[in-house]
Amino acid sequence: MQNFDFYNPTHILFGQGRIADLNQHIPADASVLLLYGGGSIKQNGVFGQVMAALGTRRVTEFGGIEPNPSYETLMRAVALVKRERIDFLLAVGGGSVIDGTKFIAAAALFEGAEPWAILEKRGNNVRCALPFGSVLTLPATGSEMNSGAVVTRKSLQAKMAFSSRHCFPRFSVLDPATTFSLPLRQVGNGVVDAFVHVMEQYLTYPVNAPLQDRFAEGLLLTLIEQGPQVLARPQDYAVRANLMWCACMALNGLISTGVPQDWATHMLGHELTALHGIDHAQTLAIILPSMLRIRKEAKRAKLLQYAARVWGLLDGDEDSRIAAAIEYTQDFFEQMGVKTRLADYDLNATHIAPILSALESHRMVALGEKRDVTLEISRQVLELSL
Amino acid sequence: MQNFDFYNPTHILFGQGRIADLNQHIPADASVLLLYGGGSIKQNGVFGQVMAALGTRRVTEFGGIEPNPSYETLMRAVALVKRERIDFLLAVGGGSVIDGTKFIAAAALFEGAEPWAILEKRGNNVRCALPFGSVLTLPATGSEMNSGAVVTRKSLQAKMAFSSRHCFPRFSVLDPATTFSLPLRQVGNGVVDAFVHVMEQYLTYPVNAPLQDRFAEGLLLTLIEQGPQVLARPQDYAVRANLMWCACMALNGLISTGVPQDWATHMLGHELTALHGIDHAQTLAIILPSMLRIRKEAKRAKLLQYAARVWGLLDGDEDSRIAAAIEYTQDFFEQMGVKTRLADYDLNATHIAPILSALESHRMVALGEKRDVTLEISRQVLELSL
Repeated sequence: MQNFDFYNPTHILFGQGRIADLNQHIPADASVLLLYGGGSIKQNGVFGQVMAALGTRRVTEFGGIEPNPSYETLMRAVALVKRERIDFLLAVGGGSVIDGTKFIAAAALFEGAEPWAILEKRGNNVRCALPFGSVLTLPATGSEMNSGAVVTRKSLQAKMAFSSRHCFPRFSVLDPATTFSLPLRQVGNGVVDAFVHVMEQYLTYPVNAPLQDRFAEGLLLTLIEQGPQVLARPQDYAVRANLMWCACMALNGLISTGVPQDWATHMLGHELTALHGIDHAQTLAIILPSMLRIRKEAKRAKLLQYAARVWGLLDGDEDSRIAAAIEYTQDFFEQMGVKTRLADYDLNATHIAPILSALESHRMVALGEKRDVTLEISRQVLELSL
Repeated sequence: MQNFDFYNPTHILFGQGRIADLNQHIPADASVLLLYGGGSIKQNGVFGQVMAALGTRRVTEFGGIEPNPSYETLMRAVALVKRERIDFLLAVGGGSVIDGTKFIAAAALFEGAEPWAILEKRGNNVRCALPFGSVLTLPATGSEMNSGAVVTRKSLQAKMAFSSRHCFPRFSVLDPATTFSLPLRQVGNGVVDAFVHVMEQYLTYPVNAPLQDRFAEGLLLTLIEQGPQVLARPQDYAVRANLMWCACMALNGLISTGVPQDWATHMLGHELTALHGIDHAQTLAIILPSMLRIRKEAKRAKLLQYAARVWGLLDGDEDSRIAAAIEYTQDFFEQMGVKTRLADYDLNATHIAPILSALESHRMVALGEKRDVTLEISRQVLELSL
């Protein structure tokens, strides 16, 4: 096991009816900016519950945070925060709204340079942030219980990540009932997103960390078990609850303690979203199977463990077990309604060179747990994903 | 899954050489009380590392916190804190030293009544506490990453628990190398303690919480796998590291999220320690197997799951699988060097009535996940443990 730090102070309020309890976690005299996305919270009852819980606090609204939140949109919210003397942010939505809120929280107090510098320095220059909480309505990214965020700058076609210990939500309300009204496409995307988050932290090489491995495998098995159930019975609270907790645990720092991490799939996926607007989870479903096939030798030991413990593949030679495990993974993504080929999104071989150029311009030329995923390897992965 | 809160702000600094980093987590101008137990930290190099890390801070020492820390001892430390105007506590030791430090932190700022009231009210009356951190040297209780503590009042022969959200360690240093010099009896006790902590949160009844179940099973499997290795190769850092992380994860609130909890075994065990001075883990090893046998019907579904997933018991009828799983559990405790019968500790049938009286006087008359462990059931458990 490698040395590590683990720190995660986010208070989770989990379960049906818990939105009311945010009242106890926001100062009574706070001036609150309520942030949301496309406005579905105004149709499904969540907005009303949040406003009731906020009571007599002064509330300003900022809607329209888009999927893959843009720097341009978020900077408008920063201006609003300053103009209205906001002192608490409340994100109500999925990972994009929460990610955007983290950036706004940091940018509102950022001094000395344009806040884009936060992304250029990956958050290392963040010294403080406005306090904020979240009401999660889309289990997927884990943003509700971590300190990271991804922001897109449209004018540069760049999707960049940052994190800071100042950017943990003070609290996050996880009420599975808020997810009943999600389109199934978003539900499927969420399951795939959480699954790939686990894989990025698990499927590298062994470092004798058996507990972390078993936690990761527990997450994968539960996603494989519960994912199809949510499509079959969208109104089943228990299934929604299990998926919501899985997605949260998949990226809150727990399973990455003391182990190497990959994230090459995410870096390629970010470029696909930035250039072609493909949903984040869709990009992961496209890239991961090819990434595992191309990097089979470097990941052999963990691929065999994954095949055995997650998919029960114990018979046959090593290569056939590995091939089957990757095949099952890809089938699972398809089963969740997420297509796994570039061709499914109308992309072909002519689109690969611009993706590689984008990776190069973002200095994504040595990716993965051993920093050996070169542009050439990325090219092979993309070609295998056609 | 049941509704739940999860909140755990303790910063974990894990790995070899990490004691030096506590310098960054204690205010530079702090007046520190360094708390420890029997003094082994002065033989094994830990004390020197801690003092080096504390640098020029004013440090006062308080040694002699005993296993099952006593109210009487801890109140002497409270007096010292007030006299010396201490503003940061640093526990260096195992669960007893950290538990004692939590009580001192709360008692030092407790107003209006004798601090024994903290234990009488189980911590609900704690409004603030001195900040404190820990350097863990004995993986077992999980106290390094939770807000609970157990204190014994010798004059009353009472062992009482309290917890408060104000009593999380600010940080805990987990350096597995500090555990190399532990007596193997303490190592075995630690493994059993962590194992039973998991069982108290796992082996109840199903509530459709598959992720929590798999995390608990991952802990049990890892303890069963690593425990014998630590006895065979006491100088193996990787094994020490895995056990240290397991013990921490076993009782930090993670696996109890959304599920029922038992703790009847602990309540009976506490009386055995209070009356007869038996090591905490030894009491758990005595009680748990009998508790599972006596309560087999109420726990049937989870016992079958435990038999299958932890011990691989898939063949035979239900009762024989359950019997074998409990037998294997008891064998594992014995393998770790922890005896599992009252007779092994020179106790016999004449000792049962006083234990039941103690349970009654502490109002421990309706224990377990369904509050149906009456004094009569406790009597049956103790008789089966003879």
